[in-house]
Amino acid sequence: MSLPTVATCDPERPENASAIRRGGEPVRRISVLGATGSIGTSTLDIVGRSGGQFQVVALTANTNAEQLAELAKRHRAEIAVVADPDQYQVLATALAGTGIEAAAGADALDAAASMPADCVVAAIVGAAGLRPTFAAVRQGRRVALANKECLVSAGQAFMSEVERCGSELLPVDSEHSAAFQTLLAAAPETIDAITLTASGGPFRTYSKEQLENVTRAEALAHPTWSMGAKISIDSATMMNKGLELIEAWHLFPVTPEQLKVLVHPQSIVHCLVSYCDGSVLAQMASPDMRTPISLALAWPGRMPTPTKRLYLAEIATLTFEAADEDRFPALRLAREAMARGGAAPAILNAANEVAVAAFLENRIGFVDIVKTVALCCESAEKEGLMTKCDTLSEVLGVDAAARCLAAAIITH
Amino acid sequence: MSLPTVATCDPERPENASAIRRGGEPVRRISVLGATGSIGTSTLDIVGRSGGQFQVVALTANTNAEQLAELAKRHRAEIAVVADPDQYQVLATALAGTGIEAAAGADALDAAASMPADCVVAAIVGAAGLRPTFAAVRQGRRVALANKECLVSAGQAFMSEVERCGSELLPVDSEHSAAFQTLLAAAPETIDAITLTASGGPFRTYSKEQLENVTRAEALAHPTWSMGAKISIDSATMMNKGLELIEAWHLFPVTPEQLKVLVHPQSIVHCLVSYCDGSVLAQMASPDMRTPISLALAWPGRMPTPTKRLYLAEIATLTFEAADEDRFPALRLAREAMARGGAAPAILNAANEVAVAAFLENRIGFVDIVKTVALCCESAEKEGLMTKCDTLSEVLGVDAAARCLAAAIITH
Repeated sequence: MSLPTVATCDPERPENASAIRRGGEPVRRISVLGATGSIGTSTLDIVGRSGGQFQVVALTANTNAEQLAELAKRHRAEIAVVADPDQYQVLATALAGTGIEAAAGADALDAAASMPADCVVAAIVGAAGLRPTFAAVRQGRRVALANKECLVSAGQAFMSEVERCGSELLPVDSEHSAAFQTLLAAAPETIDAITLTASGGPFRTYSKEQLENVTRAEALAHPTWSMGAKISIDSATMMNKGLELIEAWHLFPVTPEQLKVLVHPQSIVHCLVSYCDGSVLAQMASPDMRTPISLALAWPGRMPTPTKRLYLAEIATLTFEAADEDRFPALRLAREAMARGGAAPAILNAANEVAVAAFLENRIGFVDIVKTVALCCESAEKEGLMTKCDTLSEVLGVDAAARCLAAAIITH
Repeated sequence: MSLPTVATCDPERPENASAIRRGGEPVRRISVLGATGSIGTSTLDIVGRSGGQFQVVALTANTNAEQLAELAKRHRAEIAVVADPDQYQVLATALAGTGIEAAAGADALDAAASMPADCVVAAIVGAAGLRPTFAAVRQGRRVALANKECLVSAGQAFMSEVERCGSELLPVDSEHSAAFQTLLAAAPETIDAITLTASGGPFRTYSKEQLENVTRAEALAHPTWSMGAKISIDSATMMNKGLELIEAWHLFPVTPEQLKVLVHPQSIVHCLVSYCDGSVLAQMASPDMRTPISLALAWPGRMPTPTKRLYLAEIATLTFEAADEDRFPALRLAREAMARGGAAPAILNAANEVAVAAFLENRIGFVDIVKTVALCCESAEKEGLMTKCDTLSEVLGVDAAARCLAAAIITH
């Protein structure tokens, strides 16, 4: 209660950019897995603005060798790795004479993730991110986690590995970053509930009949966040929020029953933690991933970002409504997978990935996405796939089998 | 990030009432100064529900000896003190044979405040709370502060005393309790702003002309909080929020420019702390003082309260608007007093207390309250009252002089 008075930390004034360098803290070494994606480029945007607070170790990408080389040169990375071996020559040529090492292939990716760094930003999308993110955890320092599959499909194995390796896990999702900030100093027994907010997506007010007829273009137009195609569709079905419930279940000391979803169309409040004394702590911010990314990089400090400041008097109104699991059954499916445990969340996630891809290829309709996932979960139960899922290789096996099942359901 | 999973802390189930007794924590000894007032009775309500987590040391009241005796018996206090010496016999008679000591007068009040306790709830209203609260600070443990004058009028002297005595100060105002919770783990240099919300009072939408004609009864009808007469009028003029700005300035590591006011008619969000990364942490709760009181008692734990749970899907809409210092000039006067420092906040507060009393006696009109305060501040400047104000006796001198000035302004 008796901290000294200080000046404002204004991101427009570069002399204040050293907010996280308290007590002469040294430059932080950072790697970014999935550097050319949405989270990766936002991360490097922050790194570029930080005035030399970070030193880039490894940058990786899936196929885009040219952009990867560009980023590696701009941020003076030590090594750049492209997952697709066919892209090695493009990368090596672009980096020739720069002193930046070029490498390609799955093993090189894991090796880059394992390189010593103060923080590895794990931002590879989908099941492809599992192995490299596990490798980053084994490195034993901080992992800023943006990959959903590590928690959704491999939650148990992943959290065990985090504990075994003494890693520090910081969530990068806006909702989980919000929960992390509002759970500070909370004794677990004082937490009543954690409520993740959802924009409700572009079809929040649609009837079941209207949902039958939505198009690919309509589903891709998210009202508040600018995101990739897969996550935009997941927002439209609300499967995204279902997957986030599963993530939160692994990250925070709560039961599935203590995890709630609240529809909040403005996407300003990201998460609310309710306590036993009636207090609710909430985190708000303009929808910009650079805020949660910067927190994961700077924690326990904070660093200036160019995120648009929140002026609630201008926004004027925040609205909230209950989530409708009847029109958006993905939420119910996710809760069922959480309750089922074991392989169920991995099957849910794999089936959803296949179904969303089929929708994006115009092979199935919008409501068929969640129907496919539900059928796949039922079918997996019958075929004995709902086993335990304690190791990464078990997860990968279940994931592959569920994809086959989902593909078969879509074809027939 | 790897806390154990726990059960819900449900205030309806008494077996969970021990949330704050972690690790076999012993029963906490507590005194309540101003036990018969609004904060005092709410405090004892929580104490009564806690299932023996608190042992009551001293209870004090200004004049209501009968209610004080009743509370002392119900909560098995060690001593009960009434400030008014004329009430001693009433108190002593009511407590005869109970084993509870009875005392009266200002010195007895200070002595009771100084008795060893883990927490002293300082809830005496007005300048009368200054001496006993300073005495409670000298006791050297925790002070749960509800008296405004200690910070508004005597801020510098009070905070020096808190530091000198190694006391732990926890704010009980809902806005400052909210700020305290949302400032946890914040490095001062990462704080952009602290925004206190204000309901806007019953005249939020009134024009300047309409404000000229409001009555005593209209001014006493607060839209969201049930409070005493003085604070209800202060809410209607918004002087309450001005005084809270001054309190926050002493409590938290920010400059006056970093302190903001935001009108929020629903009184659900109590305070917002904005950080340099674009994050805004907010505390929300149904308007019930038992939530901030319980936090001050249980911190760093939390304890169940009967505060109505917040269901945002039911509340549906939260609105925010800028505060209008033209229609509500009390906010500007408070900012000027903060900027002026020294004796200025004490003069502001004393003049306001006199003017509100005159309004409640129908001696002046509603808009005259703030006009009187403004005139008194100008007059105090001319008469050389704007001196330094570093000790409690200097504060008391300035307070008395300002009261005389304000009374003279009202009479002429």
